[in-house]
Amino acid sequence: MTKARRPGPTGRLKVAEHLATGVRRHEDRVLTEEPLEIRLAWPGAATRRVWTTLRTPGSDFELAAGWVHHEGLGRAAGVAYCTDVELRPEQEFNVVTLTLDTVPARVPSQLDALSAGSAACGVCGTDEVDEVLARRPSLPWSGPLPSDDLVRTLPDLMRPRQELFARTGSAHAAGLFTAEGELVAVREDVGRHNAVDKVVGARLLAGASSAEAVLVVSGRAGFELVQKAVASGIGALVAVGAPTGLSVRLAEAGGLALYGWTRAERTVRYA
Amino acid sequence: MTKARRPGPTGRLKVAEHLATGVRRHEDRVLTEEPLEIRLAWPGAATRRVWTTLRTPGSDFELAAGWVHHEGLGRAAGVAYCTDVELRPEQEFNVVTLTLDTVPARVPSQLDALSAGSAACGVCGTDEVDEVLARRPSLPWSGPLPSDDLVRTLPDLMRPRQELFARTGSAHAAGLFTAEGELVAVREDVGRHNAVDKVVGARLLAGASSAEAVLVVSGRAGFELVQKAVASGIGALVAVGAPTGLSVRLAEAGGLALYGWTRAERTVRYA
Repeated sequence: MTKARRPGPTGRLKVAEHLATGVRRHEDRVLTEEPLEIRLAWPGAATRRVWTTLRTPGSDFELAAGWVHHEGLGRAAGVAYCTDVELRPEQEFNVVTLTLDTVPARVPSQLDALSAGSAACGVCGTDEVDEVLARRPSLPWSGPLPSDDLVRTLPDLMRPRQELFARTGSAHAAGLFTAEGELVAVREDVGRHNAVDKVVGARLLAGASSAEAVLVVSGRAGFELVQKAVASGIGALVAVGAPTGLSVRLAEAGGLALYGWTRAERTVRYA
Repeated sequence: MTKARRPGPTGRLKVAEHLATGVRRHEDRVLTEEPLEIRLAWPGAATRRVWTTLRTPGSDFELAAGWVHHEGLGRAAGVAYCTDVELRPEQEFNVVTLTLDTVPARVPSQLDALSAGSAACGVCGTDEVDEVLARRPSLPWSGPLPSDDLVRTLPDLMRPRQELFARTGSAHAAGLFTAEGELVAVREDVGRHNAVDKVVGARLLAGASSAEAVLVVSGRAGFELVQKAVASGIGALVAVGAPTGLSVRLAEAGGLALYGWTRAERTVRYA
């Protein structure tokens, strides 16, 4: 039997760097990107494949727990790598099975995952906003929020904990903070949405609530990220990049404070 | 009858900018993000909903044509906004129906769109790479490639044409260039993958080949972007950001020259 080689979060390869002055050959570190398939089981039902995402290996159970939570499917009673005999060694750490503690309110499908399956005909941003609010699994944060001055300092407080970013220059990070600016948890991934699933999933698997005062993200705050923040009952979402028109609408409807373009000198409050 | 309001690519809203010295209230411009549903029709079959993406409105027909091409589903014989009587005015410009000229080799589903549906059990990067190569719809570029010195200049040549980025600071761009550095077409979107679908779709709808010498992208070169470049038979993919381990593997297997971290001073060749 071949022993499975568990993929690391980064890898090395030889590159040629072309400068105006000539070529420099050296080793470079790149972020690992591999598919993760999530299978769901619940009492009285057979296991089914529900979603596949390209992610950076590491915190895979947290990713699955966070994703299920953000989709409003329920709570993880257990999560494990799949031990299916048909899996080849290189697939073994790319498939997790998450067992829900109860029957989910809706049977998830790929269509649902893309938030487009429930309307009989047609789509628009307002439908998407309503759908997120209708299936929000967490009560919104009702505690104190950070001051605007504190918000400006948060990305710099998160950066020393962005280990994959330091090694590759290209990983996205998501961090949970208290209203006083204390860092609760950080996770990194090639995908912004995965980083958010991981950091929230980490809290859930530790038995904590997903509703925290602040979520800081290293990139932009598009609809999908605001969707997850609202679903988790986050108090304030602080992004280093820009929001979109739809993400501002959803933040306002969901009672989420939304900050963009955040750095030491300034932050812009959108909702 | 209510007249449909066609959404623009950007919108204005009031924001509060928090600086160390105080608060400045002003109007800000943000990128529009709205769902686009793609429906497919082909000879002898009923129209079916196949995919929904969050995109910036504009070049919607090109997006649909490029997406269908990159998924290996075929060529557009026609594409139009949906005139379904059940659509509400605000949905009208968020649904397009694309008619294929022939029956597709496989019936697309959301699972296929995520590149995870064809394997009987389990997923791994090698499967994904094989699948992309197996269903590549275009012959690879066989003409000349740009010099490494020219590659370094390409992002700066694209920037003056990034109008949405200039207005919002947050749109991704994809541009096609000849081997001599001549700009063929640029498109922008909130999503990197949509920008690539749009720019390739623009060429296809104009009757041109998708196989061009160079594709320049304003962000990172993850698996999905390299997948589209390989599917279109692009010669060289030039990214401003980093590639991933899997995207380098796919570029090597697909015969695509892959550059990352590209700016005036340097570029790094990964494959």
